[in-house]
Amino acid sequence: MKKGIVAIDLGGTTIKCALLSSLGELIEKWEIPTNKSDGGGHIVQDIALTVEEALHRHRWDKQDVLGIGVGAPGAVDKEKGLVLGAVNLGWKGDLPLQIELEKATGLRVEIDNDANCAALGEKWKGAGDGEPNLVCVTLGTGVGGGVIANDRIVHGAGGAAGEIGHMTMIPMGGAPCNCGKTGCLETIASATGIVRIAQEKRAKAVKVESLSPFVMDLSEHDMTSQLVFQYAQQQDDVALEVVQEVSEVLGLALSYIANTLNPTKIVIGGGVSKAGNTLMYPVKTAFQKFAYPNVARTTDLVFAQLGNDAGVYGAGYLLLENSGA
Amino acid sequence: MKKGIVAIDLGGTTIKCALLSSLGELIEKWEIPTNKSDGGGHIVQDIALTVEEALHRHRWDKQDVLGIGVGAPGAVDKEKGLVLGAVNLGWKGDLPLQIELEKATGLRVEIDNDANCAALGEKWKGAGDGEPNLVCVTLGTGVGGGVIANDRIVHGAGGAAGEIGHMTMIPMGGAPCNCGKTGCLETIASATGIVRIAQEKRAKAVKVESLSPFVMDLSEHDMTSQLVFQYAQQQDDVALEVVQEVSEVLGLALSYIANTLNPTKIVIGGGVSKAGNTLMYPVKTAFQKFAYPNVARTTDLVFAQLGNDAGVYGAGYLLLENSGA
Repeated sequence: MKKGIVAIDLGGTTIKCALLSSLGELIEKWEIPTNKSDGGGHIVQDIALTVEEALHRHRWDKQDVLGIGVGAPGAVDKEKGLVLGAVNLGWKGDLPLQIELEKATGLRVEIDNDANCAALGEKWKGAGDGEPNLVCVTLGTGVGGGVIANDRIVHGAGGAAGEIGHMTMIPMGGAPCNCGKTGCLETIASATGIVRIAQEKRAKAVKVESLSPFVMDLSEHDMTSQLVFQYAQQQDDVALEVVQEVSEVLGLALSYIANTLNPTKIVIGGGVSKAGNTLMYPVKTAFQKFAYPNVARTTDLVFAQLGNDAGVYGAGYLLLENSGA
Repeated sequence: MKKGIVAIDLGGTTIKCALLSSLGELIEKWEIPTNKSDGGGHIVQDIALTVEEALHRHRWDKQDVLGIGVGAPGAVDKEKGLVLGAVNLGWKGDLPLQIELEKATGLRVEIDNDANCAALGEKWKGAGDGEPNLVCVTLGTGVGGGVIANDRIVHGAGGAAGEIGHMTMIPMGGAPCNCGKTGCLETIASATGIVRIAQEKRAKAVKVESLSPFVMDLSEHDMTSQLVFQYAQQQDDVALEVVQEVSEVLGLALSYIANTLNPTKIVIGGGVSKAGNTLMYPVKTAFQKFAYPNVARTTDLVFAQLGNDAGVYGAGYLLLENSGA
């Protein structure tokens, strides 16, 4: 019987690490900085070393461990075990993370991208409650997604399943998106998108000499998505308008996902989700209006529960997913 | 070694039947009428009888047969083997098709709904080419869908996965849909939707005294979706406008599905798909414009290949899907 799993959430700034029992209980959690110098050439050795030290601390032999699961930023080729174009790790080209880390540690390694790991984490230990059909949506600087169908992550033909941030919600005249298109969900429902809409609404409100505290108190440069939701909670007209616009579009986009997959839950996480019910209520209202009635009844919108730990739990689950456990 | 599979596509008018080899080669295909009298109470016995006769004709014993796969109209509860609210079979309430047909024949029975069976059929023997990630869209009187992810049909929490005909494409002021909402994809990209849009465009063109042959030749009541595509192929302005509007919306809806799942192929079937490239070219153009670039590169739009036989092949595949074959 294996004692546990090593789980790694590899980010551009820090590497989050954990030892988990094979049931997913957290045994230890720690972080090391991501050393991007020398073209990211230290990353594999740094992970190998910190894992060795942790196993030593807990007096675990390598045969006690099911392996190492790693969530990596950006696109991942799961079959070849590559992190594709890992520029934010300082790496040029594709990083053969799986095989290099297996060589360095002698342990089995499974990798997937961080959005998929976050979805698996929420399914295993968070809001997903073990449900076999689940979509996770992360509202942060951008909008990301992870899709679980029939109990497994859906990767898609080009590894681009879950690119729900790039659903074109404004087919004509939308704001430009980093992906090269315009009018993507990400230009509306990300923290950045909310700020953009808030600045537009504020400029209009200034012209009509609005007395809304949101307009009076804040300059264009003060805007953050948190402030939008704070003022909306205080029933500020202009802030409420921003939240309403964002929620309508997000609820509509979620209805498209739900009509396609009818997941038991759509789990909403990321920094923007901290707005709580100021966001959730209008999003649910829009979702109920736009989804197919049977879908609206059976797909529930819920908040993520694991915060920044979702990725590390999901990385650990990669070892179980691929053992058929 | 089992010789084959019995496959049944149960419809409101006819019951399509086939004997297939376990590799999916067609051995015999036949039809019987659907007897909806006495509240659909003859259907199970009729199927059992026609199956017995077919096995007899081919001198197959029951132990030569893997079982009977049935595609049924409307919603299906796969776990309980029920056809839910099978009104178009004359049945009141839920028809316990799986258990009744097992009793009547002594054979293993697997059931699923007809849209899912059509998707499985195209995956196994048609345009899907065995791909594990595939979405099938049927453009007929309505718009239906079947989703295959990680090699299995996605049913969804309420059995409503694939309800892509009810994606709300016109959030405000859309035409009413049978589902109770407005602005659904089905109100635009079904045969009925195309006729509705054609009638609207014709009425406008009449007002401006258009000389378009589409307007001059046809009355409001002559409109069919076939005629729209015929005139569009002859570069008729008004007909082209209709096709353009329908294609933009359909391409956008398919981009939502593809951004979520990044399937290898989206297979387009149903009567409307007979329009061929007059439909496919503008739909692909819209899809390329609206999908995430990596998705646009890796998800291909193709036509279905099996026509009305997709359902019967897919029904047969149910026996293999659930054997893990």
